[in-house]
Amino acid sequence: MDRTAYRLADIVARFGGRVEGDGGVAITQIGTLESATAGQIAFLANAKYRKQLESTAAGAVILSAADADATTLPRIVSDNPYSYFAKLSAFLNPLPAFAPGIHASAVIGEGAVVAPGAHIAAHVTIGEGARIGAGSVIMSGCSIGANAVIGENTRLYPRVVVYHDCVLGNNVIAHSGAVIGADGFGLAMEGGRWLKIPQIGRAIIGNDVEIGANTTIDRGALDDTVIEDDVKLDNQIQVAHNVRIGAHTAIAGCVGIAGSTTIGRYCRIGGSAGILGHLTIADGVEISSFTLIGKSIREKGTYSGIYPFSEKDGWLKNAAHLRHLDDMASRIKNLEKELEILKRRD
Amino acid sequence: MDRTAYRLADIVARFGGRVEGDGGVAITQIGTLESATAGQIAFLANAKYRKQLESTAAGAVILSAADADATTLPRIVSDNPYSYFAKLSAFLNPLPAFAPGIHASAVIGEGAVVAPGAHIAAHVTIGEGARIGAGSVIMSGCSIGANAVIGENTRLYPRVVVYHDCVLGNNVIAHSGAVIGADGFGLAMEGGRWLKIPQIGRAIIGNDVEIGANTTIDRGALDDTVIEDDVKLDNQIQVAHNVRIGAHTAIAGCVGIAGSTTIGRYCRIGGSAGILGHLTIADGVEISSFTLIGKSIREKGTYSGIYPFSEKDGWLKNAAHLRHLDDMASRIKNLEKELEILKRRD
Amino acid sequence: MDRTAYRLADIVARFGGRVEGDGGVAITQIGTLESATAGQIAFLANAKYRKQLESTAAGAVILSAADADATTLPRIVSDNPYSYFAKLSAFLNPLPAFAPGIHASAVIGEGAVVAPGAHIAAHVTIGEGARIGAGSVIMSGCSIGANAVIGENTRLYPRVVVYHDCVLGNNVIAHSGAVIGADGFGLAMEGGRWLKIPQIGRAIIGNDVEIGANTTIDRGALDDTVIEDDVKLDNQIQVAHNVRIGAHTAIAGCVGIAGSTTIGRYCRIGGSAGILGHLTIADGVEISSFTLIGKSIREKGTYSGIYPFSEKDGWLKNAAHLRHLDDMASRIKNLEKELEILKRRD
Repeated sequence: MDRTAYRLADIVARFGGRVEGDGGVAITQIGTLESATAGQIAFLANAKYRKQLESTAAGAVILSAADADATTLPRIVSDNPYSYFAKLSAFLNPLPAFAPGIHASAVIGEGAVVAPGAHIAAHVTIGEGARIGAGSVIMSGCSIGANAVIGENTRLYPRVVVYHDCVLGNNVIAHSGAVIGADGFGLAMEGGRWLKIPQIGRAIIGNDVEIGANTTIDRGALDDTVIEDDVKLDNQIQVAHNVRIGAHTAIAGCVGIAGSTTIGRYCRIGGSAGILGHLTIADGVEISSFTLIGKSIREKGTYSGIYPFSEKDGWLKNAAHLRHLDDMASRIKNLEKELEILKRRD
Repeated sequence: MDRTAYRLADIVARFGGRVEGDGGVAITQIGTLESATAGQIAFLANAKYRKQLESTAAGAVILSAADADATTLPRIVSDNPYSYFAKLSAFLNPLPAFAPGIHASAVIGEGAVVAPGAHIAAHVTIGEGARIGAGSVIMSGCSIGANAVIGENTRLYPRVVVYHDCVLGNNVIAHSGAVIGADGFGLAMEGGRWLKIPQIGRAIIGNDVEIGANTTIDRGALDDTVIEDDVKLDNQIQVAHNVRIGAHTAIAGCVGIAGSTTIGRYCRIGGSAGILGHLTIADGVEISSFTLIGKSIREKGTYSGIYPFSEKDGWLKNAAHLRHLDDMASRIKNLEKELEILKRRD
Repeated sequence: MDRTAYRLADIVARFGGRVEGDGGVAITQIGTLESATAGQIAFLANAKYRKQLESTAAGAVILSAADADATTLPRIVSDNPYSYFAKLSAFLNPLPAFAPGIHASAVIGEGAVVAPGAHIAAHVTIGEGARIGAGSVIMSGCSIGANAVIGENTRLYPRVVVYHDCVLGNNVIAHSGAVIGADGFGLAMEGGRWLKIPQIGRAIIGNDVEIGANTTIDRGALDDTVIEDDVKLDNQIQVAHNVRIGAHTAIAGCVGIAGSTTIGRYCRIGGSAGILGHLTIADGVEISSFTLIGKSIREKGTYSGIYPFSEKDGWLKNAAHLRHLDDMASRIKNLEKELEILKRRD
């Protein structure tokens, strides 16, 4: 594939920033400092990688004013090199276009409305009364339940399932294997057997949400599960019924969030963390990877709860004492008392 | 959709309990105390929410005798308001019916038998020799392997995969993305390379089992993996080969159970917990979320192993000592000895 | 199904080892010591199960020279009974053959090349320009993206998704629900909103790799994500963008590996472990289940970080002290100092 070349001068005309060095240098693609070639532009967004400036084969670099003198390569100086890179890369790598239309093998339920500009791929099923907005792309093998609503310019990768009555906003991306609106885990015990509690709420997904591969977002038990605008969910996350996730919150892979918990806006949650049910997490909270949050967090801040790893022999020796911490604490207290008595006696 | 209205008097005639207040009040749906409207009935199953009785807009309430005087709303008094709610909600919200028949796009293997009353949706594949029982619903895009057996009134949501030879009982529910009977993780190392151990057992799923979205249950290596009746599995659970899960056990999301472990009946396992392989867990055991069970549990009870979270600075300060607990314990012992000597000297 | 019977003498002629007892005994299948019947051969690979030799109903046994006298059953003596079992079982249980050809319901994109010997099942979609090698089996409902390359004798179980441009080697097995090449989790914050960073790298999967059910392997952000030859991944593993996993490494279920981490060759990683991003793990490292690796590991060895479980009351009592370890450590130090003073005074 021949790629179009763009001169640095044209790039800053479009995206801002300023050129230092030869603005006539043309690039066709973005790369890392380590792997970019002469026709590519790299970026420096983290001081940790500054040394790579010396050895990079990139034709040009995006960096901050503070780093502008650290190389003689043609360069674009920006206040935020990382977001500059994001925007330039999106420009250089547009998503593939999908021609509007419905594949012959797709099965469209009675009363379903597919906007003229939408693309419905092979082996898709769309339930009765569902609505698919203009510009949306429903890739192969997706299943959209009855009366579900998909907004505009939303993109469902192959094999996404949206259950009946659920709602996705505009510009949503859902990756393969994501399941939106399956039943929450609601059970009542009676006479030694479980009764299923019907899950009659919906899952409501706002605009600009991204949902990772094999992530699951359950429908609500009675009220809805709600994912607000611009929430970003990585792969294999489990969002239980009646959770609410505030706008602009980003959650890394493998996190589990139990039922009826409310997470604030602009939170960042590390991979494999867990949050118990019926809790409230304030806006702007950061939670470390592998941390279980077992009670509500009312204050912005960073919270951790990771058992540190060590070489196994050391771990065996130390971990055994965890079952005796209370005893250790009592013995320290006792030693302090007795020492005090001895000191007084002298 | 117009919903049918039911009078409280009619409801207790059907489900038991007794009415206090106006039995002529009619409701059409269930809601929470917080969100129910005048035509809806709410329920109080947890004392924590009693205060919401004062402000609820619900037309009626289900509650226990102990709470019967806490509101003047028309109410149904029940011994078990939560299971009453479950049964009433199931009555008010019947599952959508699926007309018997096989969609034209479904592919049915040679010798497969689909009972006349079953529903086979679009883009389903059913392998050679498989059997689908009466009343079962196989939704769009499911794949049923060769010689698999699906019981009666079982419901597979879109994109469920059942591998060859596996067996599902009656009244099973499996949500989208569940994979039943994939190969267990069996390997032998020889000459620096892995040999695959064929997984020739099956996955056998009892009656009344529910399997959450994207949950995986591996087939056995030689013998079978067995999920007994009325087991309830939430989303994204991993059940390895040759595990046996006892009847009526409920397991929350993201739990991993390693190979050949046997879990008792009526256990409850919290989210993101893990259980190592070749263990035995007694009946009636409760395991907290985020807890790793590394040896067998012989006694009923509740077991935990969660590292508590804290504000990150505090965590950093405290966690560093975990690698020195053995040293701390020795020093305490030593202090006790030396103090004893000092005391004797005096 | 009538199974073919093989005499022990014929088996050792084919696979090596030696027979003790009657080499004319014929077996048709492999079983465990506990469940094998007279026409089956069991194996003893772990001293822990030696007692089962006494009660087994197996017709023959595979075992090591050290155990050869522990039974009078006809037996095959091998240096490595476990890999002997693996090879014999693979011989007795060949994978079902799939006839070459493309199912009428499959949708093959323009310019895609399916080798004559490949099997493309029902409801598969293969994108434009993709290539499927000879002997490969793409089972029902798989989706292969544009320009993806699938090697020879590779087997994708139903509903596997391979995104555009990704590459799978020869003899790869991917189980149902696996998603290969979805976008990595790349975001830049600007003006209070997230910008998506295009994920333009690929996922490259070597030869002889096995990928478990619902495992996800993200494509690279700029460079590729790489899984080297003979890597074995269990179910529900998350591999983030730009991870590299060295040859012959085996990873158990539910592990999460964050972005840009490099894992060595011949590593073994236990279930539900986690590895943070931008780390390097040496060759031959073993990581215990449920352990978070938060910094690089430079030395071969076994590493753990598990908070041990206990009966809940004991856990509650002990865990509370974890937030005061730093205080405990200071108090011990202080006690030591004061005791030293007292001792000197005497």
